[in-house]
Amino acid sequence: MRLAFGRADMVITTGGLGPTYDDITKEIVAGYFGREMELHQPSLEAIKAIFARVAPGRELTKNNEKQAYMPVGAVIFANGRGTAPGLALEGGGKIAIMLPGPPGEMKAMFEESVRPFLRARTDTTLVSRTVHLFGIGESAVENVLHDAMVERRNPTIAPYAKVGEVQLRLTASAPSREEAARMLDPVEREVTGLFPEHVYGVDVGDMQTALVGLLREKGLTIGLCESCTGGMIAARLTEVPGASEVLRCGVVSYSNESKARLAGVSGRTIAAHGAVSGECALEMARGVREVSGAEVGLAVTGIAGPGGGTDEKPVGLVFVACAGPWGEKVIELRLSRGYKDERQNIRNLACLNAMNLVMREVWNNENT
Amino acid sequence: MRLAFGRADMVITTGGLGPTYDDITKEIVAGYFGREMELHQPSLEAIKAIFARVAPGRELTKNNEKQAYMPVGAVIFANGRGTAPGLALEGGGKIAIMLPGPPGEMKAMFEESVRPFLRARTDTTLVSRTVHLFGIGESAVENVLHDAMVERRNPTIAPYAKVGEVQLRLTASAPSREEAARMLDPVEREVTGLFPEHVYGVDVGDMQTALVGLLREKGLTIGLCESCTGGMIAARLTEVPGASEVLRCGVVSYSNESKARLAGVSGRTIAAHGAVSGECALEMARGVREVSGAEVGLAVTGIAGPGGGTDEKPVGLVFVACAGPWGEKVIELRLSRGYKDERQNIRNLACLNAMNLVMREVWNNENT
Repeated sequence: MRLAFGRADMVITTGGLGPTYDDITKEIVAGYFGREMELHQPSLEAIKAIFARVAPGRELTKNNEKQAYMPVGAVIFANGRGTAPGLALEGGGKIAIMLPGPPGEMKAMFEESVRPFLRARTDTTLVSRTVHLFGIGESAVENVLHDAMVERRNPTIAPYAKVGEVQLRLTASAPSREEAARMLDPVEREVTGLFPEHVYGVDVGDMQTALVGLLREKGLTIGLCESCTGGMIAARLTEVPGASEVLRCGVVSYSNESKARLAGVSGRTIAAHGAVSGECALEMARGVREVSGAEVGLAVTGIAGPGGGTDEKPVGLVFVACAGPWGEKVIELRLSRGYKDERQNIRNLACLNAMNLVMREVWNNENT
Repeated sequence: MRLAFGRADMVITTGGLGPTYDDITKEIVAGYFGREMELHQPSLEAIKAIFARVAPGRELTKNNEKQAYMPVGAVIFANGRGTAPGLALEGGGKIAIMLPGPPGEMKAMFEESVRPFLRARTDTTLVSRTVHLFGIGESAVENVLHDAMVERRNPTIAPYAKVGEVQLRLTASAPSREEAARMLDPVEREVTGLFPEHVYGVDVGDMQTALVGLLREKGLTIGLCESCTGGMIAARLTEVPGASEVLRCGVVSYSNESKARLAGVSGRTIAAHGAVSGECALEMARGVREVSGAEVGLAVTGIAGPGGGTDEKPVGLVFVACAGPWGEKVIELRLSRGYKDERQNIRNLACLNAMNLVMREVWNNENT
């Protein structure tokens, strides 16, 4: 604490607010500010209420009570997702902000409590927008945008390489959110215009949210038939609240038998072309479209590795097929980079390519 | 760097080794040690080889070449999963170790290159084992183990609260791995003996790996019928290489129609008890066992929220059913804690409870 406050006026900690004996953040920070600990009754009531709901009849343990003890004078941040409240402590021009460690609790508390707490102390606001790009690498994006990224001071443009996508964060600093938005609009137009084949959304969160949103907007439902992705696309779409309006059903057809039984793929197709083939992917997409009664059938078949690859059909070979009211499309992907332990990476890229294919198909056929 | 080396003899950095202009870790560290940068030919060849594979015909950009420039005298760690090599630089009794930022690359490089690099410098070895517990909270574990955790110095026992599980890490420090193992054996026996209902494995990685391993060991196959978990169990099982030996098929029956069509649930059952009911879960498990031809049918149906809850059937109500050669079992779960945005949490806990149920059923019926 002494070292950190020697360099900065505000220190944010995460973790160490829990019930166990090695959770000592509050005590250490209270010591730095020379404050005693006292029982914070509302926090104790909140913890008791959670216990009553989660473990009716079980007595509150002493170490759980510990979470309700706070340094004198602290501002308490309620925890809507866990038992440990957060807090802020101030003195001598220094502010310590203590957040719980679990990312879900920490991030939510920052948004709900810390951001307003901090915003009340400044007359400048920062507003960011995130442009999502798929199918292009960070260095290729930088080659196009290098000068703009380096020279621009407000708004700034910063690239973030995520797994399978690149995000460009545009950030404006202004006296108001409205003014920041006015500064961001032309930059957003410029950036999205530079990558028309790759941008799939602005501030859309992630690809599954973008896809579910697009299908809802267009009134389309979807059925899935997944082989090498093993249910990952279904799991991602159903992360999005309201996915039930869009997803009719999913089939994880890991065996050839289940491809036939659940999606109506013919044994002849598998015999002639193999289960990892464009022909099989197309039959899977048609079959699940039929079985599910959805407007769109999406299918993925491929070799995720580490085993199962051959010279002709190596690990990383994946076929994605989309069957819609407008027609059908199959794409062939080579997703191996020759690295080790690629299985999850290949599966993830197969998911992203599949979801992206559906969005491109919907956009390309909007007027048919 | 000056600050960090003022406090420690070794500094490990992650990130900033990539191709873009804001990747400056190597240059900064080289400056600290007073070293020039030079082209490291083997790294350049490796990057070119990756480019040739991934983007045949595309020319290597200048910023990608930058990744092959290294401080004079550095020890280079090859990157088996990405383009940026890692490195170590030493001088004046100080060591800097620079690892790439992407977690998959960073962790693998640590295991493959940094750990042996460091081990060669010490005559003590640390060996850890992780005991995995499910269905018990961190504070309840601590209540049982408190004295042992605080007092024990070698081996140490440290609790880690993960999402939906608690891990106990037992760590011994000894001159050899064999000696450390001898010290860990009795502690492992003691700890696992204290939580017989909750321990599901030691050093098993995660629950899907433990479950796939158990099913393979017993020669059992499984079929899945998922409603509220929407394919998450299938996606997790198929993370594990070799899951195809175990998973026959999965069905994501998000709509009532698909529960009937793909898993043979009768319309009468849904009309009488609702799709979120023990009766429906049981028919789903039986149905998918039948359809898939697997020995074990596993089904999950529930209300993940945020919408869809009623007083009688609130958000968080989940039924899990397992049908096996030994008989059937249904469990009812209340997974809401009354927090906000619980959807992913409820779905995750439903997955873990479902996988855990199968393991308990297999263990309980081993001799039937």
